[in-house]
Amino acid sequence: MFKEGDYVLIRYGEKKYLKRLTKEGSLNVRKDVLKFSQIIGKPPGVKVGKFEVYEPSLEEIIMLGFERVTQIIYPKDAFFIAFKLGIDKSSVVLEFGTGSGALCAVLSRLAKEVYTYEAVEKFYKVARKNLERFGLAENVRFHNMDFRDAPVEEGFFDCAFVDVKDPVPYLEKVHRVLKTGAQVGFLLPTANQVSELLKALDGLFGSAEVLEILVRYYKTIPERFRPEDTMVGHTAYLLFTRKLES
Amino acid sequence: MFKEGDYVLIRYGEKKYLKRLTKEGSLNVRKDVLKFSQIIGKPPGVKVGKFEVYEPSLEEIIMLGFERVTQIIYPKDAFFIAFKLGIDKSSVVLEFGTGSGALCAVLSRLAKEVYTYEAVEKFYKVARKNLERFGLAENVRFHNMDFRDAPVEEGFFDCAFVDVKDPVPYLEKVHRVLKTGAQVGFLLPTANQVSELLKALDGLFGSAEVLEILVRYYKTIPERFRPEDTMVGHTAYLLFTRKLES
Amino acid sequence: MFKEGDYVLIRYGEKKYLKRLTKEGSLNVRKDVLKFSQIIGKPPGVKVGKFEVYEPSLEEIIMLGFERVTQIIYPKDAFFIAFKLGIDKSSVVLEFGTGSGALCAVLSRLAKEVYTYEAVEKFYKVARKNLERFGLAENVRFHNMDFRDAPVEEGFFDCAFVDVKDPVPYLEKVHRVLKTGAQVGFLLPTANQVSELLKALDGLFGSAEVLEILVRYYKTIPERFRPEDTMVGHTAYLLFTRKLES
Amino acid sequence: MFKEGDYVLIRYGEKKYLKRLTKEGSLNVRKDVLKFSQIIGKPPGVKVGKFEVYEPSLEEIIMLGFERVTQIIYPKDAFFIAFKLGIDKSSVVLEFGTGSGALCAVLSRLAKEVYTYEAVEKFYKVARKNLERFGLAENVRFHNMDFRDAPVEEGFFDCAFVDVKDPVPYLEKVHRVLKTGAQVGFLLPTANQVSELLKALDGLFGSAEVLEILVRYYKTIPERFRPEDTMVGHTAYLLFTRKLES
Repeated sequence: MFKEGDYVLIRYGEKKYLKRLTKEGSLNVRKDVLKFSQIIGKPPGVKVGKFEVYEPSLEEIIMLGFERVTQIIYPKDAFFIAFKLGIDKSSVVLEFGTGSGALCAVLSRLAKEVYTYEAVEKFYKVARKNLERFGLAENVRFHNMDFRDAPVEEGFFDCAFVDVKDPVPYLEKVHRVLKTGAQVGFLLPTANQVSELLKALDGLFGSAEVLEILVRYYKTIPERFRPEDTMVGHTAYLLFTRKLES
Repeated sequence: MFKEGDYVLIRYGEKKYLKRLTKEGSLNVRKDVLKFSQIIGKPPGVKVGKFEVYEPSLEEIIMLGFERVTQIIYPKDAFFIAFKLGIDKSSVVLEFGTGSGALCAVLSRLAKEVYTYEAVEKFYKVARKNLERFGLAENVRFHNMDFRDAPVEEGFFDCAFVDVKDPVPYLEKVHRVLKTGAQVGFLLPTANQVSELLKALDGLFGSAEVLEILVRYYKTIPERFRPEDTMVGHTAYLLFTRKLES
Repeated sequence: MFKEGDYVLIRYGEKKYLKRLTKEGSLNVRKDVLKFSQIIGKPPGVKVGKFEVYEPSLEEIIMLGFERVTQIIYPKDAFFIAFKLGIDKSSVVLEFGTGSGALCAVLSRLAKEVYTYEAVEKFYKVARKNLERFGLAENVRFHNMDFRDAPVEEGFFDCAFVDVKDPVPYLEKVHRVLKTGAQVGFLLPTANQVSELLKALDGLFGSAEVLEILVRYYKTIPERFRPEDTMVGHTAYLLFTRKLES
Repeated sequence: MFKEGDYVLIRYGEKKYLKRLTKEGSLNVRKDVLKFSQIIGKPPGVKVGKFEVYEPSLEEIIMLGFERVTQIIYPKDAFFIAFKLGIDKSSVVLEFGTGSGALCAVLSRLAKEVYTYEAVEKFYKVARKNLERFGLAENVRFHNMDFRDAPVEEGFFDCAFVDVKDPVPYLEKVHRVLKTGAQVGFLLPTANQVSELLKALDGLFGSAEVLEILVRYYKTIPERFRPEDTMVGHTAYLLFTRKLES
């Protein structure tokens, strides 16, 4: 049952809102009002007028609840990344830079432990706050430092994800701290960066895969089924490879 | 270190092979030969000539190792489904029909327990064999029956995924066995099926999201970066919604 | 050379403006000002500060210069339609409904003659004004009537394009006024409409092709080459078929 | 009416064939046979059993009738190019390299005159043969030479399209032979080429547009409307710009 202080996801037609329940709170959409006092004590899935109220999904928490101080890794990409890296309950995962913490939140749900590094203090603080606010920080070790300066033992991580402007100077260190044959992924907004990274992998990492994920949403009127008029055209290229033995 | 009997993923340029290691085994690609005896005792990430050898990822196991008796749910879709359903280590998940077991394999890696139902005996057997062969069946309860005939208590499942030709006759039962506000997803190959399902959700389930996932792969020659010439044009529409309280 | 009264296309970085030149006119973008007196008497391709000035293309005229009273047929679709219909300098083309005249403008540039029909008087007037304003109306015969009421002889048209909400009631008449084997196209915003039309073609028209055109634009910074962040997700499904002999 | 020697487009369900009619000729598809003697003397649009017979469209001529000695420019791209260049009945168009002549065939249908240059003798011969065979060569001037060696006067062409491996060395000459403010397009298979060209345009040509065209085809069974399983993933990037006055 919903209680005061809970974060809830409220749908009103195609619109979505992430709100924290207070006794006095309310949400106005067009001419309709949802008083949060009507929700407290009710179960998820309750419908009041045109409003539907649920527990928020991780995707909704990230998209609607996270403060953004950087371009975030979208859930569509984050989901795919987490699986490509082969993360499960026993995985110890390396990630840098943390950014606003969107990918970190996805990784933390699946992994045993996530070590994340962010050089910019402001980003580090926001990411940490984002995850703590929604109870996602328990198995995350936040570091406010450039990963190049991090003291990590060889072969420590099961897999890694790298989201920094120029990943090339980090490749040797990433190679060293990964287990043999481990998966590593990179997020790269531009084609030029992909070309540069592909050249630099040679010898350290094996054959790469480069891809992008496009999600096409549809309008949900049964008699007029058709794609949405606009879509996200590009977030980033994703590159996946594995550590080679030297 | 690799040992006899292990399944390994072998890359040769852009080609991928899933093989089981035997002392006498070998792989021929063009004019090159990889003798498996060269691999046994070596760590993942070993490179022999043009061959790279790794532990297979779940995606590779499904795409290259699973016997297919039905159209499978592709990993790109399965990854997204698993996350949209909000599955974590505590989730008890309902899935039907099992098909060849591709989605089941993804769900089993994340969830506490997966209950899967498949009416066709042949599919049930192949799916079971696919998961057992790769050690993915431990937390999966396979049932060779139509889900309509399954004895399940009310509010038992944390979430559900439905992949049957006509999901409409199952909606009331799915609604009954889900927890309040629970997420449910559907896979639908055609636009007509989406329209039919959207009409039938009304009253039982809340506002829906319909989408499709497109993955665009790129060639990995750094000096000639460009998308692949052909791509998968369509696998299925995915529909997600949540249980409404009645 | 540009002279007073000319329509010009002005580029300022990625922004585009369609303007009519007057002696006193000017364009302000950010902190920059282009006085039109600087342009008059200059040739197309002139660059003044950050402003580039050209003759507008047909695409730019439609997108920036046409008044829109309806959803328009986008140039990306209109170009494709014109070619699929096999229009050349000798073609007599049927089109209805005219809408805001976007497709009509494209057809008129290629065909010998375009007959266009629009039942709604307001649309008819705007379309006519749009084409006349840019000198595109010379070979267009505008009709303010429902095509069902149009007196047309059998086998008169070389090809036809239909953009009305429900094309099914028009099929027999379209069939009758087309030459043998002639191409006909339809614009349909929703999947449901495509299904309905495909069913109704049978016997009158041959095997159909259904498709949609997606245009993906890229940012043009050479060191940061990447797709635009957002794109048009859907305009319409296009269906093409040909008249069968009965 | 169809007569001996005509090229015809034959449809059989989703399959398409381009054939030349002879009295003795026939087409076998599965268990069905179409004798061409049944077609001769019949009008376009005739249906014999499951076979439908039409005049071929330009797209069908290019895709099914042209010999290919190079990667061709696909009609989806060619249509778009022709319109972006603003070609009409009065245009004198420059194109190089000719390749197999696919774009040339599209341009020739619209323009007053097309001047096309191809350095490789084999390509030149095949392109010429392709266009002549289908009556498309009348207003085309074929040249078997590198465009750099072509004697052309300044400001001669209304627009230009460039499809060579490295267009950069041609830019100054292209600039010189174009009219003021003229449109020019480039076809570039790789992202690296786009970056290189964007850098080189500066000063000679104005703000560029870079895009790609994706065509998504659908299955045409009305009760099972859905996209095709596979699609063309990439043909080329298209870059359009205009001549700047110097």
